[in-house]
Amino acid sequence: MTIQLYCFGESGNSYKAALPLELARMDWEPVYVDFFNGEARGEAFRRINPMGEAPVLVAGNLTLSQSGAIQDWITEQTGQFGGTTPEEKREILRWQFWDNHKGSSQFGMTRFQVNFLPEKHRNADVIAFLQGRCRAALATLDAVLTDRDWLASDRMTMADLSCCAYLYYPEPFGFSRDDFPAISRWLDRISETPGWKHPYDLMPGSPADRA
Amino acid sequence: MTIQLYCFGESGNSYKAALPLELARMDWEPVYVDFFNGEARGEAFRRINPMGEAPVLVAGNLTLSQSGAIQDWITEQTGQFGGTTPEEKREILRWQFWDNHKGSSQFGMTRFQVNFLPEKHRNADVIAFLQGRCRAALATLDAVLTDRDWLASDRMTMADLSCCAYLYYPEPFGFSRDDFPAISRWLDRISETPGWKHPYDLMPGSPADRA
Repeated sequence: MTIQLYCFGESGNSYKAALPLELARMDWEPVYVDFFNGEARGEAFRRINPMGEAPVLVAGNLTLSQSGAIQDWITEQTGQFGGTTPEEKREILRWQFWDNHKGSSQFGMTRFQVNFLPEKHRNADVIAFLQGRCRAALATLDAVLTDRDWLASDRMTMADLSCCAYLYYPEPFGFSRDDFPAISRWLDRISETPGWKHPYDLMPGSPADRA
Repeated sequence: MTIQLYCFGESGNSYKAALPLELARMDWEPVYVDFFNGEARGEAFRRINPMGEAPVLVAGNLTLSQSGAIQDWITEQTGQFGGTTPEEKREILRWQFWDNHKGSSQFGMTRFQVNFLPEKHRNADVIAFLQGRCRAALATLDAVLTDRDWLASDRMTMADLSCCAYLYYPEPFGFSRDDFPAISRWLDRISETPGWKHPYDLMPGSPADRA
């Protein structure tokens, strides 16, 4: 049974699911969601996921959305990128929540406003506000990574595979590796993992397709 | 051993931890964080929680932040408000992530901008943007609650105790019960639970203190 992941290349949230599926060598394939033409918010897609978002994972009878819940399922299935003690498990979960609350949620929103929203709808005040939120989150991440290699353990876990997701994209949204050296080194550690792929190489869809 | 919860009344994120501690009748006490004078972002508090946020739970040797992770710990300790099957557990986790990503994260930010940010720093465009995000999240929640009583099970779980947290406050931020009847009925179901308390009755600190 091949796992299907409804996703698209520009979605860091999708990447949080696609990357561990790939690194854990699960039998999976991407199913393209045409987000930029509104597919994720349409009626047909809402029948798959009432939250109207990507990613959605379909594995036999299981249909699952929210990247954090999908990551938890991948760990349950493969034993990979999870914690080995209750403390580690809690620490991974804590960072996944932080990422959804303060990290990727802000990075993704800002990335969309700066790069993908039609220019006439962009608002400089909104972008400045969101970039301020991003900088605060990035500063927290950089400070924590200054004296450790991985967020929640002595090896790479879902905590890392969650928090990194929007930070490999080339389109600018207010994050520069030069400003956050500890984050930059950590991103290198993750991307040096055998089997790692860039989001645009792992999932269909990229700005180049719409150029 | 009395559990300590670093929190403050205006914080819906703190309420997500305080309410289940109270409903599960755990031995706990609130420790006031003077958020509005910057305590949560100060050096002393960052030694307790490098993420610089409330709530933080301290139970013996355990120091834990992020309300979702604290909720998970409360379930682990008491068996309450969790799932009884793998499917239910996943569904609870999925809603907790949704709430952190799309729900409370937006409600809390908007509530702060509209009510607590000094007026000279408020920006109408930013508030309009955030209120649009809130409406989208509330519409998703209302649609789902139209044909079920609880989000993730046939009884109240941490999914409900996470998503409801910012919706009991009297200060306006763009949510009105009249506009979302299914949410309104669900909030009543939660507040009819024996032992339920309003955030301002459960935790120290409220706008009245600063009036």
